[in-house]
Amino acid sequence: MPLIHDRNNPEMRSQCPISAILDRLGDKWTLLIIRDMMFFEKKRFGDFTDSAESIPSNILTNRLKAMQETGLIEARPYQDNPPRYEYHLTSAGQALRPVLFEMIMWGATHVPGTFKPTFEQIEMMKNAIKK
Amino acid sequence: MPLIHDRNNPEMRSQCPISAILDRLGDKWTLLIIRDMMFFEKKRFGDFTDSAESIPSNILTNRLKAMQETGLIEARPYQDNPPRYEYHLTSAGQALRPVLFEMIMWGATHVPGTFKPTFEQIEMMKNAIKK
Repeated sequence: MPLIHDRNNPEMRSQCPISAILDRLGDKWTLLIIRDMMFFEKKRFGDFTDSAESIPSNILTNRLKAMQETGLIEARPYQDNPPRYEYHLTSAGQALRPVLFEMIMWGATHVPGTFKPTFEQIEMMKNAIKK
Repeated sequence: MPLIHDRNNPEMRSQCPISAILDRLGDKWTLLIIRDMMFFEKKRFGDFTDSAESIPSNILTNRLKAMQETGLIEARPYQDNPPRYEYHLTSAGQALRPVLFEMIMWGATHVPGTFKPTFEQIEMMKNAIKK
């Protein structure tokens, strides 16, 4: 699997799929927003700033915009005046579930002080992937 | 699974295992270095700078140091004068294989212009995870 920089697409660092996914979510926050949508049914701006990691609102604004541009989430208006949006995972965003599952398993196994999912929670996550 | 900020460990943003793994590899480069070690048997500083994404050497130095501190890789001297090191994945680093596999599958499926692994390559990766 040679990894070649594609001169026709200067926005891609290479044609490697790992490089491509990191271009979209290779930071400390994007996957936490996706976690909040995927596992905690969070939708609104204030839902995300309420999470334990206290994402700064300027970073959240920036990430929500970038995630819409790269097709991970979509914004749906829920109020007109002033305009307000709820954010939902697209099918491509939902398809990140196995990535998050493996990250949870790695983090819980290898980082002391993290929450350890129960057997039931692991089975629930596996079943949600199979669907 | 409540996500609580652990006041006893100010270095952790929360006790969430996803947050914990992102603290270690939530950037655009760390997983590319791990990819190079895991799939391309790269070991030395110049091996990593040779990759298609052209990692800047100051970033590479920084990441190799951080990855040693967080226990993802270890440095082994291969030359004394001047001192030179080879970098190898620890068992915790090797345990990231399922995460990288799922990222490859997502990137290849959802990002146009990426290399698509063949059926044989997918089977090889799955078998390496089972070992």
